[in-house]
Amino acid sequence: MNMGKDTVLSVFALGGLNEIGKNMYAIEYGNDIVIIDCGNKFPDESLLGIDLIIPDISYLIENQTRVRALIVTHGHEDHIGGIPFFLKKLNVPVYATRFTLGLIEIKLKEHRILRESELIEVNSNSLVPIGEMNISFFKVNHSIPDCLGIVFDTPEGTIVHTGDFKFDLTPANDERADIHKMAEIGNKGVLLLLSESTNAERPGYTPSEQMVGKNLEQIFIKAKRKVIVSTFASNVSRIQQVVHAAKATNRKLALLGRSMVNVVKVAEERGYLDIPKSMLIDARDINELPPEMVSILCTGSQGETMAALNRLSTGNFRDVEILPEDTIILAAGPIPGNEKSITSIVDNLYKLGAHVIYGSGSSSGMHVSGHGYQEDLRLMLTLMKPKYLIPIHGEYRMLHHHRMLAETVGIEEGNTFIMKNGDVVDIENSIARHTRMIPSGDTYVDGVDIGDMEFVLRDRRKISEDGMLVIIIPMNKQEEKLLSEPEFISRGFVDQNFSELRKGMHRITIETINELQEANRNSRNVMKKQVKRSIAKYVKERTRKEPMIVPILMDI
Amino acid sequence: MNMGKDTVLSVFALGGLNEIGKNMYAIEYGNDIVIIDCGNKFPDESLLGIDLIIPDISYLIENQTRVRALIVTHGHEDHIGGIPFFLKKLNVPVYATRFTLGLIEIKLKEHRILRESELIEVNSNSLVPIGEMNISFFKVNHSIPDCLGIVFDTPEGTIVHTGDFKFDLTPANDERADIHKMAEIGNKGVLLLLSESTNAERPGYTPSEQMVGKNLEQIFIKAKRKVIVSTFASNVSRIQQVVHAAKATNRKLALLGRSMVNVVKVAEERGYLDIPKSMLIDARDINELPPEMVSILCTGSQGETMAALNRLSTGNFRDVEILPEDTIILAAGPIPGNEKSITSIVDNLYKLGAHVIYGSGSSSGMHVSGHGYQEDLRLMLTLMKPKYLIPIHGEYRMLHHHRMLAETVGIEEGNTFIMKNGDVVDIENSIARHTRMIPSGDTYVDGVDIGDMEFVLRDRRKISEDGMLVIIIPMNKQEEKLLSEPEFISRGFVDQNFSELRKGMHRITIETINELQEANRNSRNVMKKQVKRSIAKYVKERTRKEPMIVPILMDI
Repeated sequence: MNMGKDTVLSVFALGGLNEIGKNMYAIEYGNDIVIIDCGNKFPDESLLGIDLIIPDISYLIENQTRVRALIVTHGHEDHIGGIPFFLKKLNVPVYATRFTLGLIEIKLKEHRILRESELIEVNSNSLVPIGEMNISFFKVNHSIPDCLGIVFDTPEGTIVHTGDFKFDLTPANDERADIHKMAEIGNKGVLLLLSESTNAERPGYTPSEQMVGKNLEQIFIKAKRKVIVSTFASNVSRIQQVVHAAKATNRKLALLGRSMVNVVKVAEERGYLDIPKSMLIDARDINELPPEMVSILCTGSQGETMAALNRLSTGNFRDVEILPEDTIILAAGPIPGNEKSITSIVDNLYKLGAHVIYGSGSSSGMHVSGHGYQEDLRLMLTLMKPKYLIPIHGEYRMLHHHRMLAETVGIEEGNTFIMKNGDVVDIENSIARHTRMIPSGDTYVDGVDIGDMEFVLRDRRKISEDGMLVIIIPMNKQEEKLLSEPEFISRGFVDQNFSELRKGMHRITIETINELQEANRNSRNVMKKQVKRSIAKYVKERTRKEPMIVPILMDI
Repeated sequence: MNMGKDTVLSVFALGGLNEIGKNMYAIEYGNDIVIIDCGNKFPDESLLGIDLIIPDISYLIENQTRVRALIVTHGHEDHIGGIPFFLKKLNVPVYATRFTLGLIEIKLKEHRILRESELIEVNSNSLVPIGEMNISFFKVNHSIPDCLGIVFDTPEGTIVHTGDFKFDLTPANDERADIHKMAEIGNKGVLLLLSESTNAERPGYTPSEQMVGKNLEQIFIKAKRKVIVSTFASNVSRIQQVVHAAKATNRKLALLGRSMVNVVKVAEERGYLDIPKSMLIDARDINELPPEMVSILCTGSQGETMAALNRLSTGNFRDVEILPEDTIILAAGPIPGNEKSITSIVDNLYKLGAHVIYGSGSSSGMHVSGHGYQEDLRLMLTLMKPKYLIPIHGEYRMLHHHRMLAETVGIEEGNTFIMKNGDVVDIENSIARHTRMIPSGDTYVDGVDIGDMEFVLRDRRKISEDGMLVIIIPMNKQEEKLLSEPEFISRGFVDQNFSELRKGMHRITIETINELQEANRNSRNVMKKQVKRSIAKYVKERTRKEPMIVPILMDI
């Protein structure tokens, strides 16, 4: 090991590895830590009642005097959803593109911290010096406008973070990626590349957005009545193509869904979306026009219950009805996990007599991914030709496939690090090693609460399975004996012979309390434990169920 | 309408329409009702703690003197899973093929009703007269052995039920479908066809099982160490192909998982599976052999937590370890809804250093569907050339697509009935009409309980979201006032300032009780309601959460 004044260059993730969601990466050099992205993740069904998951930033709080900035690659939730919670703890400057800042500002307003935040706009030509690091940027294509990759030039060497990307050579809205700049960066020498792995399992090249535009237009032409397109509000190029198709078929356009209205507003104001003023109409005007002159853009492509598409499919959207021969296009791929919610809506739409175009992008032609397939990932590796690779933004098998890919395009075996959140790669004298970890984890956001909620979730989980039995045991404080009959209240627990069961539980409770008192074991905790144990055993034997038993001893 | 002695021929479903699962169909002619299949459905996550869903058979119980028989098309759970519960209510004779009976018997043994059940073996040559109906059969291909379609010859006309099917012209195990017999049936004249719709959305022909056999063998040859194949235990032809591949590469075969062991036993005993005796080894012998001589068949291809594959992936299977360079093949398509459980296991397997082959059949080559794609469905319609069609066994959009298909191969517009469970089609003088309904629905099975559980589920759902707050209010019976301080117990509910919250709830509870007493409103129900309302409002304002509030007034 080299002694002396050499500074170690360190790289780690606090979120985004072994998962899709809550991306948060960090470059640490000497006295300076720069954070890349701060996203959230949505819980799966086992996390009952939890709203959001964000990265645990304990390490950053411990080292807060060294945290200099947050740089954001683009405006998707899994990259910006954690920012308000982060800034409340560490109010550092935030660097992002214009469109991304627009989305971040909406969040900061909701959390009432916009005024005290320092937001700095950057573009692909910006240069940001922080400590001994010089940070620059390059444009990439993705399924949202204004996305950047980030370059960290340090005395130790250059680290590149790709952001989320694909290569789209015929993008909508002329959002061309900086391929020449990427080649230049690669030529100058890249020590370590952090590259996203979402589609590393898929062979070939990611199809271009242009394909969707053509298909959309075809459907708009054929459609006899109104056309409804549901897609991600953030997919501004998709929205632009819907606008084109509406224009080509002389249709007006209504926007349904709060996030659709918000994002289109931001995109239009900042010049990312071109919609002829006369084209936009209100939801209320839809019924005034002949249906062949109407098109609608709505939220809810992932089957979200409260979003527009589901409400339309169940007849619960004020002013707008789906009528027979209407055409509905689901212009978004189903994100794994959402398939059933989506097909449920498709069923409803068919029942209403509509024509429905749905399915994965390859079957419907109405969606292409924003993430690079294998050849896109190979192209990035070829342009950047890094010495080391850390695959990011993926579940384990995606990181694994990315490593296999890398070894086919010149990354030496052993130079790809498959890491977990919290693992640290240290680079000294151009040699990278993974030898240590820092604290990391999940922080749950539940309503207004933030924190560790394991025990809460455990309780909710148990109750959700077999329900709950509350046993109230009124004790005479002075005389240390039962004051009155115990009471049994159940919720979410059912048994055909509940009255018989209650008699048995009654008997057992009284026996248990009496036995303990005779043995002079009057501790309330011991009594609760014993009652819980005996009742649980009895209930399980009689009903095969295991409701949560909650004995409450009341001293009166 | 024709008066006189004409008997109406009626057809309806009690399960299987607008859903995948719990199939149960019925043909009713005069004094005789014949049931086709009796399956179960597995609940989704919203049905907390429910084990199974079966069809509501109230109508059959009301008409029990007319229910003559249950005919079973094949042994999948969604066709036989409800049989034990059905027979406990209506003990009618059960007709099924040898393999199917083997699986039914396992269930009846578990429910301890095997001895009193009447099980009658049939094959494609059998003739079963019931009342004025003559029932015959024909072989079809599916992903389980010994499947039949059913023909009901009645004075009113012929009704055909396809069972579940595909057309596989190169099936494993020589299980050839009766195409000539189907053509004959069609030529004699089919009034109404009930045909399954599972893959009605998919264009083309269903690929043949033979393709999987070839791919399996390739992988077995390339595999350097042991090979583990997970698939459905009931897919006997898939298992036969694994046996072939093992034989071709000189490997022994171990079976892991109770259902795998059980079904292979039934299949082998009854001649459906050919495994050289010397090939089978115990799990315990695996470690005694060099890994290139080992192959394993296991359960858990759908990511089931307790099944073999998941336990292997987490190192929790006694005697068997997954080691680096082992090859694992998921030879089963992911059933919609199971994708996340499966990819989670794939991640673990990669972490253990294994090679993993997974994905949908078209991407992995290791699975083909057992259900006909669009051209298979067209072929069945062409062979049977029915006057009327009832698409069955599918969610709405699948039934809808099946109808569109039918209209391309000669079924007149208006002659396809898209029905719901409980809808009845009546046929008189060769005219079919849908004009009435009978009772139908879901019956939940929870542990040992059967019945309607809406309120239980509603409670569980609420508690699982935000938890539960129990408020115990001890009242002095004689004096009609609070006897002691109210107590607050929470489960699954958390707040950062619980002590503050408790003080507030304490205050509000006492205020509410006092107000009611001063107004002379001493009804316990009114008190509970008011306390619940005030506390819920207070908690929501302070925490934005809505735990279930359970006030308990105890008269002491």
